[in-house]
Amino acid sequence: MEKATIIVIGDELLIGQVTDTNSGFIAQQLNSIGIEVEETLTVHDDEQMIKDALSQALGQSNIVMLTGGLGPTKDDITKLTLCRFFDTRLVHDESVKQHVLNLYHNRPAVLNRLTETQWLVPEKCTVIPNRIGSAPIMLFRQQSKGGMEQLVFSMPGVPAEMKVAITEQIVPLLAQQYNKGAVEHLTLMVSGIPESALAIKIENWESSLPDNMHLAYLPKNHTIRLRLSGVGDNKEVLVGQMKQYWDRLLPLLSDYLVTTTDQPLELTIGEILKEKGQTIATAESCTGGKIAVMLNKHAGSSAFYKGSVVAYSNQVKQRVLNVSSNDLERYGAVSEQVVKQMAVGVKQLLDTDFALATSGIAGPDGGTEEKPVGTVWIAIATPDDTYSECLHLNGTREQITDTAVQLVFVRLLKQIQK
Amino acid sequence: MEKATIIVIGDELLIGQVTDTNSGFIAQQLNSIGIEVEETLTVHDDEQMIKDALSQALGQSNIVMLTGGLGPTKDDITKLTLCRFFDTRLVHDESVKQHVLNLYHNRPAVLNRLTETQWLVPEKCTVIPNRIGSAPIMLFRQQSKGGMEQLVFSMPGVPAEMKVAITEQIVPLLAQQYNKGAVEHLTLMVSGIPESALAIKIENWESSLPDNMHLAYLPKNHTIRLRLSGVGDNKEVLVGQMKQYWDRLLPLLSDYLVTTTDQPLELTIGEILKEKGQTIATAESCTGGKIAVMLNKHAGSSAFYKGSVVAYSNQVKQRVLNVSSNDLERYGAVSEQVVKQMAVGVKQLLDTDFALATSGIAGPDGGTEEKPVGTVWIAIATPDDTYSECLHLNGTREQITDTAVQLVFVRLLKQIQK
Repeated sequence: MEKATIIVIGDELLIGQVTDTNSGFIAQQLNSIGIEVEETLTVHDDEQMIKDALSQALGQSNIVMLTGGLGPTKDDITKLTLCRFFDTRLVHDESVKQHVLNLYHNRPAVLNRLTETQWLVPEKCTVIPNRIGSAPIMLFRQQSKGGMEQLVFSMPGVPAEMKVAITEQIVPLLAQQYNKGAVEHLTLMVSGIPESALAIKIENWESSLPDNMHLAYLPKNHTIRLRLSGVGDNKEVLVGQMKQYWDRLLPLLSDYLVTTTDQPLELTIGEILKEKGQTIATAESCTGGKIAVMLNKHAGSSAFYKGSVVAYSNQVKQRVLNVSSNDLERYGAVSEQVVKQMAVGVKQLLDTDFALATSGIAGPDGGTEEKPVGTVWIAIATPDDTYSECLHLNGTREQITDTAVQLVFVRLLKQIQK
Repeated sequence: MEKATIIVIGDELLIGQVTDTNSGFIAQQLNSIGIEVEETLTVHDDEQMIKDALSQALGQSNIVMLTGGLGPTKDDITKLTLCRFFDTRLVHDESVKQHVLNLYHNRPAVLNRLTETQWLVPEKCTVIPNRIGSAPIMLFRQQSKGGMEQLVFSMPGVPAEMKVAITEQIVPLLAQQYNKGAVEHLTLMVSGIPESALAIKIENWESSLPDNMHLAYLPKNHTIRLRLSGVGDNKEVLVGQMKQYWDRLLPLLSDYLVTTTDQPLELTIGEILKEKGQTIATAESCTGGKIAVMLNKHAGSSAFYKGSVVAYSNQVKQRVLNVSSNDLERYGAVSEQVVKQMAVGVKQLLDTDFALATSGIAGPDGGTEEKPVGTVWIAIATPDDTYSECLHLNGTREQITDTAVQLVFVRLLKQIQK
């Protein structure tokens, strides 16, 4: 199986000011065409460190993906470093120049002598078009000591530009070059069982896996994804073999199974609602809009999602959602009575088939002995009924709300599949 | 300056199923006590790879921070690998056992023979308490070839447990051990100027920086953060020296300056509103709840933030926000008329001092020649007036909405500081 090393360049990552999401995306894409990521190295905008990382990467894999340090400013030194590493010089590239001029034709103010450096490229590299940005993407080819061809790609660190480069240019190029071997993944999600209990439950099955298959546990927000990965020479044979093991796993997990797709729950929920021609609305207190953002994340959400009322104050709960002021006073905002009325209220207000509501204490303050931080009431109004449940969650404000959102989606998925 | 290397362990990161946020947090915390992160290595749950990474890390730095691979399941092999690397064996640790039993005293179902492996720890390590989880945190000490003391910490990959370990245990321990040298950062944010034009504008100033100072450009969502970092022997001397340069930079940027704090804009906005005793509400169409989530993110938001109406459908805009159906028909949902009425409507509905509204075409579909994808109208209703602006943004659905949110906050900050 072909191996790759990812090198992420940027001081900002090593002081923790910016979170690297590029390497994960690159890894995912390489994996999908059967290239395994051996290691990711995150280094400073520093010539020696970049060179050391390149040497290490080329010592362990034939594909190297660099990202970052290609901007026009002083702290961006990747291009010059690559020139020195591959013993070449910068030359004027007319096609890159025309591309940059086209890109900024309606924003001439952007052009200046620093943007001009964008069309200087290392003589030895092949320039790969950057459809949406000005920094050229570069490909260097060299022979390894063992006589294998090695490919080094240098991409911008701007995630949108990197993504376009990877999906439109680099992955097709690599898929063509290394069209051999297969790697497959099967994923499922369970909820309601701790990781170690799950491991014991499927222990015999897991021990029976052959050497070319591997199981990983990915717990997050009170759900666990299980991922079975397999490698083989032939895709169809591999898929058939993995399916045999998978079919033996599923019955063991039937009490806890949430989904067997790898996509986020909100996407599956949207697909089902769209297929059924049904709609949903949300009324959020403690989750503060997170459910709305998740449901709106993917294109086409307006077909099933009508909107949300983020009802932080009791005034909003009463005035907009029609929650009874008596119940608010008697039971408090974090109560079964109130959360059910929120769900029913927003369902009526926005005239939908389903509605979700949350009301809880996300912390760090606001907890009481009776209702400690982490107490979250959730409700789902369906066409016929209203389901409600009290969650008892732990962790930070962020974890509590993220887990509440995830568990609301787990429950909703069950309701809309009825 | 003391150096550290971070080793992040986990197959799930190298296939891109999970994004690593741990290394950024660790880097930030180490930086704050003057320890520079040299490199981050992300490796598989594989004994040889972990050992290789450890050797490399100990060859270049005296502090090594490992995270991940400490769970009770089969794919978690860090603890055994550390035993072999440091040539020691696993022994029963009674204090860890008592801690785990206490942790799960009200969830006895979690305890089983796999959780029992949690209180087996390497004989040569010092166990550091894990206040909120069951996996022990470990510290190994050894002498480098040059006779320096080297520290290797192994922490869980669960972000909440890692964060508690770092902030409550490891940072205080390191701060005490390496109390020498100073590293300082100053940050500001500008908006309305491209990165290269900014670089030219401050070029002379940047060239005048002494060797112990360094400037980084961090562009994101149409704003740019500039970070000046300095190192020195004495904190007060360093701060004074950096301040001299900083005071020369600020006047150059007065037309574009958004803030001189390093915190997220929504936090600064919340602080100002709380101080003034003012409140805000939001009405979101294309941003779909993102503004609500940002404003709710930090504890205490209920003091200034009353709520949001996520008005995806026109029906909601009319029914809940009182937008004129004539105007919706005549000008369309993405128009100055509608977005202003949304802002005024939610301000009246929720009875606040300020209100924000967005209405735009986030794409990838829905654009027209007149209103292409990326057209976003924003409005800010203030106590006296309503400000509005049409943004023309590029990129994916996510980038367009993230940039709209950021620019809404930039404009709002100006309005509430008036």
